[in-house]
Amino acid sequence: MHPQGGQSGLGMRETRGIKTMKKVLFATTALVMTAGVAAAEVSLSGDGRMGMLYDGDDIQFTSRARVKFTLTGESDSGLSFGGSFRADQATDAKVGSAGSVYISGAYGKLTMGDIDSAAENAVGDLYGVGLTGLGDYNETTFIASDSEMANNPGALYEYSTGALTVYASMYDGSPYEVWSLGAKYAMDAYAFGLGYEKNGDTGVDHWVLSGEGTFDAFSVKAVYGTADDIDFDQYGLSGKYAAGATTVSAFWFRKDTAGTEFDSFGIGAEYDLGGGAMLKGGIVDSDFEADTIADFGVSFEF
Amino acid sequence: MHPQGGQSGLGMRETRGIKTMKKVLFATTALVMTAGVAAAEVSLSGDGRMGMLYDGDDIQFTSRARVKFTLTGESDSGLSFGGSFRADQATDAKVGSAGSVYISGAYGKLTMGDIDSAAENAVGDLYGVGLTGLGDYNETTFIASDSEMANNPGALYEYSTGALTVYASMYDGSPYEVWSLGAKYAMDAYAFGLGYEKNGDTGVDHWVLSGEGTFDAFSVKAVYGTADDIDFDQYGLSGKYAAGATTVSAFWFRKDTAGTEFDSFGIGAEYDLGGGAMLKGGIVDSDFEADTIADFGVSFEF
Amino acid sequence: MHPQGGQSGLGMRETRGIKTMKKVLFATTALVMTAGVAAAEVSLSGDGRMGMLYDGDDIQFTSRARVKFTLTGESDSGLSFGGSFRADQATDAKVGSAGSVYISGAYGKLTMGDIDSAAENAVGDLYGVGLTGLGDYNETTFIASDSEMANNPGALYEYSTGALTVYASMYDGSPYEVWSLGAKYAMDAYAFGLGYEKNGDTGVDHWVLSGEGTFDAFSVKAVYGTADDIDFDQYGLSGKYAAGATTVSAFWFRKDTAGTEFDSFGIGAEYDLGGGAMLKGGIVDSDFEADTIADFGVSFEF
Repeated sequence: MHPQGGQSGLGMRETRGIKTMKKVLFATTALVMTAGVAAAEVSLSGDGRMGMLYDGDDIQFTSRARVKFTLTGESDSGLSFGGSFRADQATDAKVGSAGSVYISGAYGKLTMGDIDSAAENAVGDLYGVGLTGLGDYNETTFIASDSEMANNPGALYEYSTGALTVYASMYDGSPYEVWSLGAKYAMDAYAFGLGYEKNGDTGVDHWVLSGEGTFDAFSVKAVYGTADDIDFDQYGLSGKYAAGATTVSAFWFRKDTAGTEFDSFGIGAEYDLGGGAMLKGGIVDSDFEADTIADFGVSFEF
Repeated sequence: MHPQGGQSGLGMRETRGIKTMKKVLFATTALVMTAGVAAAEVSLSGDGRMGMLYDGDDIQFTSRARVKFTLTGESDSGLSFGGSFRADQATDAKVGSAGSVYISGAYGKLTMGDIDSAAENAVGDLYGVGLTGLGDYNETTFIASDSEMANNPGALYEYSTGALTVYASMYDGSPYEVWSLGAKYAMDAYAFGLGYEKNGDTGVDHWVLSGEGTFDAFSVKAVYGTADDIDFDQYGLSGKYAAGATTVSAFWFRKDTAGTEFDSFGIGAEYDLGGGAMLKGGIVDSDFEADTIADFGVSFEF
Repeated sequence: MHPQGGQSGLGMRETRGIKTMKKVLFATTALVMTAGVAAAEVSLSGDGRMGMLYDGDDIQFTSRARVKFTLTGESDSGLSFGGSFRADQATDAKVGSAGSVYISGAYGKLTMGDIDSAAENAVGDLYGVGLTGLGDYNETTFIASDSEMANNPGALYEYSTGALTVYASMYDGSPYEVWSLGAKYAMDAYAFGLGYEKNGDTGVDHWVLSGEGTFDAFSVKAVYGTADDIDFDQYGLSGKYAAGATTVSAFWFRKDTAGTEFDSFGIGAEYDLGGGAMLKGGIVDSDFEADTIADFGVSFEF
């Protein structure tokens, strides 16, 4: 699970994040292009949302606004480097426990900070629903997620060749040292992910894999994970159907801990208003929640 | 009373805020204009001040610097949307308890977040004095102000037609649910505001109204409010005289709680140095303060 | 000692800070140039780093990313004004205990906020080493440093004429009131600094001076300070050799408190990758640390 939302997974949220980056034209880039000289830059993007949240008992307003800094540069020899963090993460980004920095070249890309583990990068989450994520029960559980909370940076290495991307990551801190490996094979219509994580202190390990396919307007993604040492299994399925500006999504995810099954179901829809605005709504029924929860509203990207 | 200062009221601070927004030309806007394509944007503005503060006993330095993010976008069908928050509010803006987001069209404008209530939007505050606000005793008291502290967003709807703007707002959270309605009628030289607030839990309600007029270089504004249930009345008068780059302001505000009167007097002057810099000073004598307080310095807008 | 790093001293870090400011072309400036009108601006710069840190016992990842806001304006009469603070300092900058604001003209420059004292501006620190600063034991000790922690702004006045710059500063707050005077005489190849600080409450004072010379690719800087009242002396020497993209630095600094000597030695190297990226590494052996510490990695400027 990733605390910032919208930064991981093969799902649509990632796609949209990339789109935002492109959409925000960077002023300094433009000036630099005029001058014909490469230079390091800081650029801004943002997101927001407003709507209603039903917690099974009461309807409340929900809103938020966020801004993200993106840092980009290039060395004389052509190495790319940079980083990013949100304005609300600025204090944590200063010590590497939020946001991240990277350096990238022909040999691959090395990222440090509040990274997603190798397994999480390879496998990702099921498709999510709703304006607010509604508890994010579409997200796959990873051992490394606990370690992300610790106040020190992790490191992620990734290398792509053709359709294949391999990942290796490490959280080297309190409470635990966690290693992870992953591989993703992504073609136009299919993607497969395989991840392995191991807690170096407790010895607990976790295998997790995913498969995703797109058939015209319909996409489907499944995830399976198992950690024998702690008698934990997870498996789920999600689907997405896009028709013009409208996308309908649904997921089912089961987390089985020592024989006790916790099921989460979600269904949602979104309608693209263009220009970065999107109507979104969803309903989630999860064994982790006392009641069915739902939300509806409009999300913004800037 | 509004905690951020300079975001509400019919007073000059609002006018200046709007000017700042215009003055800061947005880089991404410019690039987009070139491309002839609408796009969502994030822009920056800022303010600062430096000077001396006399608390009736001692003189101390006072300074601050702030930056504000403004998010703007437009949907394909021409709906405006956006938001804003200051860099120091980034963490609260993420949960809707600071800053705000909005969507706006022909049907009016809906804002969520740390909004001013309908009554506060309609009536506003008396003219303020000084570099730092000197306790902000020129501000009208509103029931909803307490609810703004709560960690969840409020919602404000406003609709303008000609000189008339109507407002409706709601804080739906702890500690209280507060409803408010307001109307403002603003012509070139005159403005009238009427507001009503009701705490839905305690039943306490509050009527408040204001009148403002501008006669050449002289402006005057008066506010009256009454909340019978808690035996509270407030009434005050303020004036402002602008001669070239110099503006002199003064106010008197009485808050009467259960027969006990708390009077606040303030007088101040400012001199516009141009380019966003302004010399400012003020003196306030309030029954809420042990001593007369004063300040002097220079304020900046970026 | 200055808590933000890289903001003071005659050393290379200052030089690089200035370079960054120039490198980041300001979008609003460009637009304003087109329009031929002066305007106040907010601009962004940033820095980051990633690498490994050895604490004498274990090797850990280290990373960070930071963004800085720089505010600049000019009054109609040609006074410069502005300020700066980092995104992670936004909350403290709002009350003057981080970042700073200034106004500057022919009469000199007045800065308020989290300033370095007059003595610190005049004398500075020895050359530092490493990616992370490795404890910043190259930094000169100043009385005023304690007062910087207090939650209220200090004030610094500086005036330059030819090679001479004079400074006067005051921290007027809890826990202490600290005055300071300083002078720096800086020619192309030589610089001398003299500073005096006095705690107005305890009466403790502190004299400190520095000398710096550059001989082709080699630079050397020495610092001496003495505070008789508390039986404290400090003296140290540092050198720096630059050959092409490579710079090698070393320092030795002794802090002698009541006859007990604490020595710190450091040696480091950096290699400029261009475009704002720099390989950096260092080793420090200090009596203030249980073990020898070291780091290595890459730093970024945006």
